[in-house]
Amino acid sequence: MSVAQEMLRTTPSQPGYPAADLAACIEACLACAHACTACADACLGEEMVADLRRCITLDLGCADLCEATGRVLSRQTAYDSGLTRAALQACREACARCAEECEGHASMHEHCAMCAEACRRCQAACDRLLGDA
Amino acid sequence: MSVAQEMLRTTPSQPGYPAADLAACIEACLACAHACTACADACLGEEMVADLRRCITLDLGCADLCEATGRVLSRQTAYDSGLTRAALQACREACARCAEECEGHASMHEHCAMCAEACRRCQAACDRLLGDA
Amino acid sequence: MSVAQEMLRTTPSQPGYPAADLAACIEACLACAHACTACADACLGEEMVADLRRCITLDLGCADLCEATGRVLSRQTAYDSGLTRAALQACREACARCAEECEGHASMHEHCAMCAEACRRCQAACDRLLGDA
Amino acid sequence: MSVAQEMLRTTPSQPGYPAADLAACIEACLACAHACTACADACLGEEMVADLRRCITLDLGCADLCEATGRVLSRQTAYDSGLTRAALQACREACARCAEECEGHASMHEHCAMCAEACRRCQAACDRLLGDA
Repeated sequence: MSVAQEMLRTTPSQPGYPAADLAACIEACLACAHACTACADACLGEEMVADLRRCITLDLGCADLCEATGRVLSRQTAYDSGLTRAALQACREACARCAEECEGHASMHEHCAMCAEACRRCQAACDRLLGDA
Repeated sequence: MSVAQEMLRTTPSQPGYPAADLAACIEACLACAHACTACADACLGEEMVADLRRCITLDLGCADLCEATGRVLSRQTAYDSGLTRAALQACREACARCAEECEGHASMHEHCAMCAEACRRCQAACDRLLGDA
Repeated sequence: MSVAQEMLRTTPSQPGYPAADLAACIEACLACAHACTACADACLGEEMVADLRRCITLDLGCADLCEATGRVLSRQTAYDSGLTRAALQACREACARCAEECEGHASMHEHCAMCAEACRRCQAACDRLLGDA
Repeated sequence: MSVAQEMLRTTPSQPGYPAADLAACIEACLACAHACTACADACLGEEMVADLRRCITLDLGCADLCEATGRVLSRQTAYDSGLTRAALQACREACARCAEECEGHASMHEHCAMCAEACRRCQAACDRLLGDA
């Protein structure tokens, strides 16, 4: 059982989503935030960094929104469904935009290929909680 | 001139919004993130903390989304309008929900009154960038 | 292979620490940040929330420092060892303080027991990178 | 009166530092976090971005630590002096390293000059709370 699942199992509050889906989305957000932070750094280290500006900016923004969403989803006590949905929608959009950019040069940079995968997994996990998957 | 305005004046990139509106929104996001963090802490210190759970959770989530949005807006190099709009929409919604909650007990807790004001200012600044004000 | 390991494998930059130790510390930081965020939320949901104020405040602060440290460690391009060590030292101290608090009521709250474990793992991972383990 | 001062005035908790110094440090942390985020973005937009890698990485790390420290300082309920001091020490070190780097090319890039100033102000504010100023 993952840490996210264990924490949901032991909270006294009633989660607003099925625990397995919720834990999967929290983990996908955290993994994507990390992949985006690391991809931005790897892009910065590439010789052709000047051609990767858009990728770096999208990575950094996606990391911020995934991290914020992972935190919001980790709070189930007296939680507000409106705020949670707003975070999920922003996170999903950020992941979609960042994935599209990274996929465009995935063949040249393996870190972009891996970041794109993390973004698509997070996008799908948000879709599921939003009821669109 | 504020730090946000000075930074926009000296960046080599072309901001995606009028600089004055953009600087105002960045500052409103940062001020709201801080007010929400401090309000959550003040609520935690109140004798009636058990009645303020919803306020604390909304404060913490609003702080996270305002902070992420403030960061996203601070990046103007090769920025992506889709990601930026998604952040602004989430931030605006979080501010509206948190303001409504804080306004509900503003007469009892001055920190909630102040937090609600910061949320409403941030909501309005997001509205302006989104073209809805 | 974990996402953190894969990202280190594919970056063009030379990491400042052995990759296995570095990846383990990044993952420990992210897991601890999440456990602390979730533990603060679970404490807020407990009937005896008024007795858990110190735990909540330590959880929130530890989450912030672990998250910042996880991000700092994820950047290996032209990285600065002084800044990295400063982050690791703060993270280690935060984890030690939070673990001690959570251990004090681990028998009563399982989420505190799990959070304490995540803190001790992160503390040990920081120790290793700092050369004190 | 600033938002940080107002929030300290209205919290039911007893702050662990003189309110004026504490509010000044919170504001310096938030201003520095923003300046660093914006400076990293401006550096990314410069033609000579490949020569600014070290500045970008220091900016991003300093932003993360300043933001985390600003949050830690904003919590005064049942706060832990050990965790707070650890955050202040990390923040001070990050600001010193980032300022030194930015000062090195302040004559060429005005955003670096401004970022260095924000770092030095934050470093001094941390010094004061740590009792070293």
